[in-house]
Amino acid sequence: MTEKIAVLGAGSWGTALALVLADNGHDVFIWAKNKDRVGEINSRHTNSQYLPDITLPAQLKATASLEEALQGVEAVVMAVPTKAIREVSREVVKMASSPLTVIHVSKGIEPDSLLRISEMIEEEIPDDLLQSVVVLSGPSHAEEVSLRHPTTVAVSSASPEAAKKTQDLFMNQHFRVYTNPDLIGVEIGGALKNIIALAAGISDGLGYGDNAKAALITRGLAEIARLGTKMGANPLTFSGLAGIGDLIVTCTSVHSRNWRAGNMLGQGKKLEEVLQSMGMVVEGVRTTKAGQQLSQKYNVQMPITNALYHILFEQQDPKKAVDELMARVKKTELEDLIDILDTKQE
Amino acid sequence: MTEKIAVLGAGSWGTALALVLADNGHDVFIWAKNKDRVGEINSRHTNSQYLPDITLPAQLKATASLEEALQGVEAVVMAVPTKAIREVSREVVKMASSPLTVIHVSKGIEPDSLLRISEMIEEEIPDDLLQSVVVLSGPSHAEEVSLRHPTTVAVSSASPEAAKKTQDLFMNQHFRVYTNPDLIGVEIGGALKNIIALAAGISDGLGYGDNAKAALITRGLAEIARLGTKMGANPLTFSGLAGIGDLIVTCTSVHSRNWRAGNMLGQGKKLEEVLQSMGMVVEGVRTTKAGQQLSQKYNVQMPITNALYHILFEQQDPKKAVDELMARVKKTELEDLIDILDTKQE
Repeated sequence: MTEKIAVLGAGSWGTALALVLADNGHDVFIWAKNKDRVGEINSRHTNSQYLPDITLPAQLKATASLEEALQGVEAVVMAVPTKAIREVSREVVKMASSPLTVIHVSKGIEPDSLLRISEMIEEEIPDDLLQSVVVLSGPSHAEEVSLRHPTTVAVSSASPEAAKKTQDLFMNQHFRVYTNPDLIGVEIGGALKNIIALAAGISDGLGYGDNAKAALITRGLAEIARLGTKMGANPLTFSGLAGIGDLIVTCTSVHSRNWRAGNMLGQGKKLEEVLQSMGMVVEGVRTTKAGQQLSQKYNVQMPITNALYHILFEQQDPKKAVDELMARVKKTELEDLIDILDTKQE
Repeated sequence: MTEKIAVLGAGSWGTALALVLADNGHDVFIWAKNKDRVGEINSRHTNSQYLPDITLPAQLKATASLEEALQGVEAVVMAVPTKAIREVSREVVKMASSPLTVIHVSKGIEPDSLLRISEMIEEEIPDDLLQSVVVLSGPSHAEEVSLRHPTTVAVSSASPEAAKKTQDLFMNQHFRVYTNPDLIGVEIGGALKNIIALAAGISDGLGYGDNAKAALITRGLAEIARLGTKMGANPLTFSGLAGIGDLIVTCTSVHSRNWRAGNMLGQGKKLEEVLQSMGMVVEGVRTTKAGQQLSQKYNVQMPITNALYHILFEQQDPKKAVDELMARVKKTELEDLIDILDTKQE
């Protein structure tokens, strides 16, 4: 059954997901504040800034009016940077007239409050307007999704029905959607992998090679799982699509912004310079701040997050920080991992 | 304390590890059957076929005489293809005069017998000549090790003392060695990742992109862990260096032979053609046969191994096989992973 769906945000990910929904026959409205972008999507069926060379389906429409986008919809895809989640949620509250299923596809943690994105949305949208919150996450570069390359993602929600409904909305022969009941794990895996991607980019920028990067990714997964398990996640989630799957694609693909930003840092560029030249949000930078705070709050050792924090916010030399990470005194490799089981057994 | 060490095999990995040991001040003898190679290593300090552009340390010597190589050594590094393990072990038995610690660095499973490499060595070398067997494994392309790029590996043995001794022999500022008591897991992780690397190469050869490859790697890890756990491994090992670490480097690096072979298969080349053009052993091909047999013996679902088996040995079309893999009916993503815990709880 096809239905009208609103996609909030016309960045690369929102646009690619809107394309998947339109491919599935849904009546998709992308809401974007930038009127030129709205005009381009409606008249030329392209979004040249974020998805160059892609022709969008004709049934994918854009609007600058949130009211028009939300009119008669049950499901909303929220595809905005973590920083904009609260503001956009508040705008939704003003315009919505009936309860919505909000599917968020962003990857971050709010610094200071240390809330996951679903928690931020629940704080902003009152119960009578919020049917349920769903997260969609996994190894999925927008560029490849828009080319209909095979992609698999996980969806999770406190409501199994909402997760199932989201699976049905997005699933097609190129875009495979699996449900996972572990909402905390799926959100934490997606958010924290951006920290490790920055570190992997730095290692590559320093010319350290694939062996070093694989070691960083392996230890990165361990520290994400250690924290996530303490926060209540199922440790198995970190071995799945929203854990190691997303971590691999973000650390090894040329499409990854966080990797690219790290790569420039490793080559000696300054953070401000890097962020300026990217022209897109680099979620990992804010997430590093939140990750550092989470590591303290939950009293979990997170050496890579810690090193990144010193590089990004305390001007530590990237080479020195990565060398120290590689040289950490540790006798047995299961040491880090065993903590995860210990947590589980508490 | 430095000592004389024999490295059996002058391929890229044996030569790179000999270089690490020579860097640590040990008196290293590489044994190679090819007399030209022995001459080249001794006179020009290069091994141009396997490690082009690398100058080897002068204290690294080569010999075509196994007797000379083994004279007065306590530790032997066995760096030969899985297929040659039994034959070389038998030659060692003829020449050895006192008990040896055998450190094997190969990655395979013997088809039909379904033995791990340490078990093959134990079958061939009698107890009075075999102090202990150690495996060294992890994300470690030989080319990068020989360039002294940062690398981390795991060592494991039924004898904790032998593992510790191996750690001490190899550890230096570039080459970090961690012990892991789980011998089965370290051997299984190293062997089976080559199957997944072939599959990842095929996916890339078909032009499927990074999202598809990340999904294959994620599910590949799950099937390795599922089998390994049934064989008695600690599931945590598959989240470590010899598991996901090695899997990532083998599936994403341009240096990986198994990935390169898969890539050619994905581009439509025939298996014989691919193997001919490689000029090096592609362990994953034999391992796929063993993996398929292990999946039947232990009654474990291994869809990627299964698909590879059909591609390699039953002429199935790679595109059709990978498409079927991606489209497998599965409702929840933890389904595959939960089996691992079930096994553990048995």
